[in-house]
Amino acid sequence: MSEMFVGIDLGGTNIKMGLFDSQLKLVHKTSVSTQADMGPEIVIDKMVETVEKLLGAGGVSLEDVTAVGIGTPGPANYSEGVIIKSTNMPKFKNVPICRILNEKLGKPIVFDNDANVACWGEYAVGAGKGVKDMVFFTLGTGIGGGIISNGELVHGCAENAAELGHMIIYPDGRACNCGQKGCVEAYASADSTARRAAEAIEGGAESSLKKVLDEKGRITSKDVYQHLATGDKLAKEITDDTAKALAITCINMLHTTEPKRIVFAGGMIAAGEALLNRIQDYFDEQIWTLKKEAVEICFATLGEDAGIIGAAALARHAKQQGRLD
Amino acid sequence: MSEMFVGIDLGGTNIKMGLFDSQLKLVHKTSVSTQADMGPEIVIDKMVETVEKLLGAGGVSLEDVTAVGIGTPGPANYSEGVIIKSTNMPKFKNVPICRILNEKLGKPIVFDNDANVACWGEYAVGAGKGVKDMVFFTLGTGIGGGIISNGELVHGCAENAAELGHMIIYPDGRACNCGQKGCVEAYASADSTARRAAEAIEGGAESSLKKVLDEKGRITSKDVYQHLATGDKLAKEITDDTAKALAITCINMLHTTEPKRIVFAGGMIAAGEALLNRIQDYFDEQIWTLKKEAVEICFATLGEDAGIIGAAALARHAKQQGRLD
Repeated sequence: MSEMFVGIDLGGTNIKMGLFDSQLKLVHKTSVSTQADMGPEIVIDKMVETVEKLLGAGGVSLEDVTAVGIGTPGPANYSEGVIIKSTNMPKFKNVPICRILNEKLGKPIVFDNDANVACWGEYAVGAGKGVKDMVFFTLGTGIGGGIISNGELVHGCAENAAELGHMIIYPDGRACNCGQKGCVEAYASADSTARRAAEAIEGGAESSLKKVLDEKGRITSKDVYQHLATGDKLAKEITDDTAKALAITCINMLHTTEPKRIVFAGGMIAAGEALLNRIQDYFDEQIWTLKKEAVEICFATLGEDAGIIGAAALARHAKQQGRLD
Repeated sequence: MSEMFVGIDLGGTNIKMGLFDSQLKLVHKTSVSTQADMGPEIVIDKMVETVEKLLGAGGVSLEDVTAVGIGTPGPANYSEGVIIKSTNMPKFKNVPICRILNEKLGKPIVFDNDANVACWGEYAVGAGKGVKDMVFFTLGTGIGGGIISNGELVHGCAENAAELGHMIIYPDGRACNCGQKGCVEAYASADSTARRAAEAIEGGAESSLKKVLDEKGRITSKDVYQHLATGDKLAKEITDDTAKALAITCINMLHTTEPKRIVFAGGMIAAGEALLNRIQDYFDEQIWTLKKEAVEICFATLGEDAGIIGAAALARHAKQQGRLD
């Protein structure tokens, strides 16, 4: 009997799964469509079937599996293993997913939100490897986050810690979807970056992006970075504002949980060095002069697999800490 | 042999000490002047003597003491027990205070910075009692802080976590002593509150505080709150801005480590309900609408004794966690 771990990334569109050995080396991975509209019972049955197929493809049996990790978007009661509700899976209401999977698979289930799971994946084997204190940002439609302090995820009093996109950096600033004003998400998510560019053009700013907006009716953050690369002035201004917002947020995290490393993930890191270097420039410019800070700011390295790796890594961590049932 | 704890608050002016039983009930306390200019050897000898006197007054012997806790301002290497340097005790340079005290007293020494120690005191027996996640702010000359996450202090990668006064809330805002711009400390410390009032009057604002400034040459935060109580418009504006800055900081902490309780301490809490209610008002106004937040914002209850209680409580915690030598 070997010590294997299954990592599951349960999303509204796809269920991704990976089988990992005790060193978190990927043995096999697979993906099936979630078909969330079929309801939780069918989705969970499909998860069980897919685990069995995954193990078969990996040439191992359930006996070889120590534990299963799952990451999914909230809101959920993670410590109790219950999905309370889900924007992308509307039929999931108060689903005790961990209890059901535990009954069907006979294995301990470890459960956390998708941002924490991806954070833990980067921490275990990706960009965060080797440190004990890390902060993680996903720059996508919104901005999600994860915090690792002294080698453990910070969950907070009601499992809503690390909603880092909703730190207010410009009081009374841009309206955020959450109801607050001036959140970093309202400036520096992929969506907000694109929206600020569109607003500037609609307000009369000159830019090579105008043609994109006229033709497609919208601008994406990818457009912004493409036009940044070709020297567009507005694209540079927008990128600078995004980078500054992220730099301020990095400084605030440094003064809060003091990470050794800050890792950015999500679609927007496709912008590459052009973005990362500007974040670092603003960080260096805005940070205190009391002492030289050694925090490292970098991009995630695991890409799409962060969810399955992180889920398996969390399961392994629970085992190592003696927390499995 | 009973299980007693000694808590020491080592400041530049005074060394305060308390003897506590295993329930953290104060048995006896004392205070002597530090005379830091005599150098570390003499100060440490005095600490040892004072511990012996404290125990004598409490009717116990060193045998009854399980461990000694010490809090002191940084910078220090707390995990190694070394005071690196000290603004208030300039002759203290790379002093291995824990090793020396351990040798002289024969007891395990637990060491942390003064803000963390006061935070832990409030957590153990004061305003933070009963929660596992707490954030603590001291509103004095500057703003210090402490973070407790899942029942443990957050120390960060280089023991500089929870420098909460230096979270930037107004990018490119007021200059802070630390070299950054727009820190919450530059708006909401006792000193900054007073300074903003003085600046407003010098800029021509009408206020009953003008007489104070003219007569004393300066304004204190206490003056601001006294004139707030008598209905002065400027005092109200200044207080509002202080409260708003603190409320934004509370929101940012909620989205970071998600405390159940946020505790304010320090000289400025003498302002009482007038300040606390305004912080709560701004918090309620600025916080997201996604869900009702149950964080409790309150004032510290231990006053001047937080340092000695917290130091003893940290020593007890180390014992309970099996961390003593």
